[in-house]
Amino acid sequence: MNEQEMKAFSIKLMQEAKTACFTTIDENGYPHTRAVFNLRNLEQFPTLEKVFKDHNEDLLIYISTNTSSSKVEHIRNNTAVSLCITDPENFRGLTLGGDINIVTDEEIKTDLWLDWWEQYYPKGREDEDYTILELNPKTIEVWYKGKFKFRFT
Amino acid sequence: MNEQEMKAFSIKLMQEAKTACFTTIDENGYPHTRAVFNLRNLEQFPTLEKVFKDHNEDLLIYISTNTSSSKVEHIRNNTAVSLCITDPENFRGLTLGGDINIVTDEEIKTDLWLDWWEQYYPKGREDEDYTILELNPKTIEVWYKGKFKFRFT
Repeated sequence: MNEQEMKAFSIKLMQEAKTACFTTIDENGYPHTRAVFNLRNLEQFPTLEKVFKDHNEDLLIYISTNTSSSKVEHIRNNTAVSLCITDPENFRGLTLGGDINIVTDEEIKTDLWLDWWEQYYPKGREDEDYTILELNPKTIEVWYKGKFKFRFT
Repeated sequence: MNEQEMKAFSIKLMQEAKTACFTTIDENGYPHTRAVFNLRNLEQFPTLEKVFKDHNEDLLIYISTNTSSSKVEHIRNNTAVSLCITDPENFRGLTLGGDINIVTDEEIKTDLWLDWWEQYYPKGREDEDYTILELNPKTIEVWYKGKFKFRFT
């Protein structure tokens, strides 16, 4: 596979995998990994496909979280993160790394908002506790069974 | 739930969840998260239950990996790690943190060895590329739906 084919494989995996684990570094320099939604999963988040329609050749990541979460607290101190999107049943996975930022563009936050998220953000779209994080990965590692493992930047 | 009940919930989750994502910190200080086997999963690794039989009240973790892997390379430089064991379908998860070490006890390595791992370590149990990592977690965070999120040490 060449790099373009790897990217295509990676994007398909993002669209199909249900598990995403996101890591930030805490105030003591320890990593902290927890599950997050994979907003690019087409089955779980079909209405968000339009938000990513211009990114079908790259690996742009948005992560929804509470402003009061440990994720945001850690990122304010250290922007280095890792996201692992994996489909363990098929032994496929993707590790994305780089520096993350907190989205201030209100239009993006509106485009991503889903009404059922009121269980997490009771005041709705305007809830101050609603935060979107954005990662444009610098490093990408993708694997499939024992067949290949490829790292590109 | 009190701490004892949380531990019991966490151990049951370890025994049932199929997804585990493990994070080390690379030479540039960036976290790197990838999928690993959850060796405490009873369905996937039934013969290993006996290895953990004395640990059914704690959260001891063993991770099998190649000596030549990025995990071992990173750990030799920085022992701070995080392991997220998650069952996304049921919104259950566990984050374990602390310092990891490379197992030198040959008996433990023999107890954990599975013959089908020859696909990863072609020379078998004595393959120098066969490494076991051990984590006695210092911090534990467990969550279940929106119902609870609890951190203990």
